[in-house]
Amino acid sequence: MADRGKDGKRFGTSAGEAGDLRSGERLDDLQRNGYRIIQNPGRFCFGMDAVLLCGFAKDRIKPRATVLDLGTGTGIIPLLLAGRTKASRLTGLEILDESVDMARRSVALNGLQGKIDILKGDIKEAGDLFAAASFDVVTSNPPYMIRQHGLANPEEPKAVARHEILCTLEDVVHAAAKLLVCGGSFFMVHRPFRLAEIMVTLSGCGLEPKRMQLVYPFADKEPNMVLVQAVRGGKPRLQVEKPLVIYERPGVYTEEIDRIYGY
Amino acid sequence: MADRGKDGKRFGTSAGEAGDLRSGERLDDLQRNGYRIIQNPGRFCFGMDAVLLCGFAKDRIKPRATVLDLGTGTGIIPLLLAGRTKASRLTGLEILDESVDMARRSVALNGLQGKIDILKGDIKEAGDLFAAASFDVVTSNPPYMIRQHGLANPEEPKAVARHEILCTLEDVVHAAAKLLVCGGSFFMVHRPFRLAEIMVTLSGCGLEPKRMQLVYPFADKEPNMVLVQAVRGGKPRLQVEKPLVIYERPGVYTEEIDRIYGY
Repeated sequence: MADRGKDGKRFGTSAGEAGDLRSGERLDDLQRNGYRIIQNPGRFCFGMDAVLLCGFAKDRIKPRATVLDLGTGTGIIPLLLAGRTKASRLTGLEILDESVDMARRSVALNGLQGKIDILKGDIKEAGDLFAAASFDVVTSNPPYMIRQHGLANPEEPKAVARHEILCTLEDVVHAAAKLLVCGGSFFMVHRPFRLAEIMVTLSGCGLEPKRMQLVYPFADKEPNMVLVQAVRGGKPRLQVEKPLVIYERPGVYTEEIDRIYGY
Repeated sequence: MADRGKDGKRFGTSAGEAGDLRSGERLDDLQRNGYRIIQNPGRFCFGMDAVLLCGFAKDRIKPRATVLDLGTGTGIIPLLLAGRTKASRLTGLEILDESVDMARRSVALNGLQGKIDILKGDIKEAGDLFAAASFDVVTSNPPYMIRQHGLANPEEPKAVARHEILCTLEDVVHAAAKLLVCGGSFFMVHRPFRLAEIMVTLSGCGLEPKRMQLVYPFADKEPNMVLVQAVRGGKPRLQVEKPLVIYERPGVYTEEIDRIYGY
């Protein structure tokens, strides 16, 4: 059983069950349907960003929707959405072999082979991998940082997840715009410092920003995440939601965050 | 003397001093340097928007800066900025005769004829009224609402101030982009529902959004204003500031709002 530690992690971690895990890996409990995910803390672990994105998106994903997650990593977003929506089919696209392998084993571990597909592939070629306008929903937690030269280990999963080494914001938005049905929604989490570029890129690709929420670590601090829903072919009118505040006080999450995590 | 009433108005109102005021007009105290403004409550009065815009802009306006306010109405923004910055020259451009007249009388009443000019003119022609790249700062509190047909009194100052009857967001941004020096700042207050369009329009005109603050009536409600600073020729990177919350509880402003109003 997963252990819900008091170390600040919101999902419990266990040393794993024999057979499923490789060296350095661990199993984390996703607090829903008993679902668990395999991660390797030495390589990359999902963050609060992915969880908040699912919280932001889940009530807008209709029963029987088809969902594509661009750059799925170890599959956290499809796994969470499988537990929290009635989507019929969830596809995760991931370029790194080791992440694809972990994601597939997590899918199997949870008995979700009939519901979640993990595909190895490049976001930049996603428009060729899938038929145009073939998904009701596209999600992405893309790398936030503009590519920097001189990164120590640019092939490392952490670097690929954080920096625009293998794909840019524009690549992700282009793929989403091509693959969404008309009226379909793209959900993305990103950093506020890139908000203007996000709006321009989405609008330029025919994905109209319709809903946005800023995530503030504390009620009186600058936001460090932005959640966006854009609709393919939508009419211009953005609903900016109330602030999402993470900490009530240092070390103590707000009720809203507890609710999103499923406590 | 102005009377600081307890009726929810933040600036005190007086019945006026003989000579300056016409029928229906009143004098409001601006809480700084003894400055006052002539308004006609039956026609249009400035709102919190203009005050918050000045609070957002004032510390970024350098000594000796030249400032242009597009659609100045009764001149509230130049008057507040004259009291709160060391700008050398402030120009207010306004299309409605009656507002131009009130603004000019307010400038004279405060002895600011050497510092503030009120010009009658159309924002759509601002690029011809002034030399290109001739202002360090441009401000605007433009109409927020997209033009609606069937407005009862489309010539009324209230309608002109609220609806895009005589100018659009694009007109305002185009004028600002043409009139700002390279590196100069455009400060605008607007409604969050148009944020995507604001970002796209600013970027498209070479005004890079550099700073943004959302204004929330209460800490747990959706925002109803957005303050934006865009820099002509700036590099892409947006600083999103901490939330600006208006009410601590119903009827009681937050300290931040009191501070901006100058209490």
